[in-house]
Amino acid sequence: MRLARFRTAPSADPRCGEVVGDEVVALADGSTVLERLATGDRSPADGERFALGAVELLAPHAPRAIYGIGRNYADHAAELGNEVPAAPIVFAMPPTAAGGPRDPVRRPAVTERLDYEVELAIVLGRVAGGGIGAAGYAVADDVSARDLQEREGQWARAKGADGFCPFGPWVTTADEVPDPEALRLRSWVNGELRQDASTADLIFGVDALIAHIAAAITLRPGDLILTGTPSGVGHAMTPPVYLQPGDVVRMEIERLGTIEHAIA
Amino acid sequence: MRLARFRTAPSADPRCGEVVGDEVVALADGSTVLERLATGDRSPADGERFALGAVELLAPHAPRAIYGIGRNYADHAAELGNEVPAAPIVFAMPPTAAGGPRDPVRRPAVTERLDYEVELAIVLGRVAGGGIGAAGYAVADDVSARDLQEREGQWARAKGADGFCPFGPWVTTADEVPDPEALRLRSWVNGELRQDASTADLIFGVDALIAHIAAAITLRPGDLILTGTPSGVGHAMTPPVYLQPGDVVRMEIERLGTIEHAIA
Repeated sequence: MRLARFRTAPSADPRCGEVVGDEVVALADGSTVLERLATGDRSPADGERFALGAVELLAPHAPRAIYGIGRNYADHAAELGNEVPAAPIVFAMPPTAAGGPRDPVRRPAVTERLDYEVELAIVLGRVAGGGIGAAGYAVADDVSARDLQEREGQWARAKGADGFCPFGPWVTTADEVPDPEALRLRSWVNGELRQDASTADLIFGVDALIAHIAAAITLRPGDLILTGTPSGVGHAMTPPVYLQPGDVVRMEIERLGTIEHAIA
Repeated sequence: MRLARFRTAPSADPRCGEVVGDEVVALADGSTVLERLATGDRSPADGERFALGAVELLAPHAPRAIYGIGRNYADHAAELGNEVPAAPIVFAMPPTAAGGPRDPVRRPAVTERLDYEVELAIVLGRVAGGGIGAAGYAVADDVSARDLQEREGQWARAKGADGFCPFGPWVTTADEVPDPEALRLRSWVNGELRQDASTADLIFGVDALIAHIAAAITLRPGDLILTGTPSGVGHAMTPPVYLQPGDVVRMEIERLGTIEHAIA
């Protein structure tokens, strides 16, 4: 199922629901996406119905922890002049980095080299057997300040600034994604195609990434793992092209939907 | 005031209180340390009183975000063969890294080179004027897996593993710390003094660290900033000495108290 969080008017309280076709059906039991992830409950929504185009989609939930993976596509490692890593490169972002699937991304004054990275996000939750695993997937932009990333060594500010992890448009539960490592992912800036690849090219796949992090860190329902980006980022263009206020970034992953954000 | 979280028996619910002399006085209004940090309320506790020695001290609160600073003492940068940084090196840990002031620290199987780092922790909260700033301070151990730190580049697993940020023993509010950059900090392993320095030697001080992070990331009440460690870590000894199960680490910062944890 496709679990979304939305509101019907700017002043309305956020509600959670299931996206079915062109509609979103409210979860009549009042449960949230995070609760659904925590329990594994997949019972269909049967509440009030709204046209998808008439609601504002919000971040499906507030992740308590967000992990990113560096250099997890060989062609992206190469375009930035890096070696393919021998083990996953794991960094953490603060929860304040999370944003909704249509939220503008503000370019902080500390960077002049803002860049995009379309990524498959693993959404952790209760899975068959009772453990915590890949309960769902979403589209995410691992927004990156390339100047800070190069200068600061550790990436907390470069990749963890406010709103640098917009994700959504909803959480597609794992039962609807037969093979998460065979999904086409694309990004556009102002309508121009920039990235076009497949998660088949992930160096470390979904299970390997989860196991690698879980060897040291307890993963909890709602946590996100951004699995890395393929080639085509602005920083690797000749000459490099960075995101400017007014630009519009659009990202799509097969089966998972589309997110879109303006740069502010 | 000194804000603590404690329980009177292993099966009892956690309570919050104010440490006064050898006693902890319950916050009779039922407020938590996090709420006190968020509101700036410093009204004295006037609830039930317990002998400090008779309660179990817990982590004062559950931080939503934890930041660490690398190489923020010149002598520690030098002992590990690193240059003094031109700007703060900021990394993020997941909230699951937080631990209580007496919690054992489990050495995960992925590391054989576990090390300690006594650090002044800034505790964010509401400050005079209404903004979010250094509302208090605590003692923290920035537990580090040196093998992962050297091998993985990004430090999420090396420094953010479960329980790798024990802190406490309570939050000492900023009004009781006239100069946070003039505090003696020490660590011992099995009673042997390993680190003995002063926060006067911080390269980037409290205000500079807060401003540096806040330029990209919204800091929230309860967030922690671990300000870096002085020289004397086990990794820099000749030959290097790492923490082993059964070792006991004790850390003390002037005015802020003592934390102690066994390695499990």
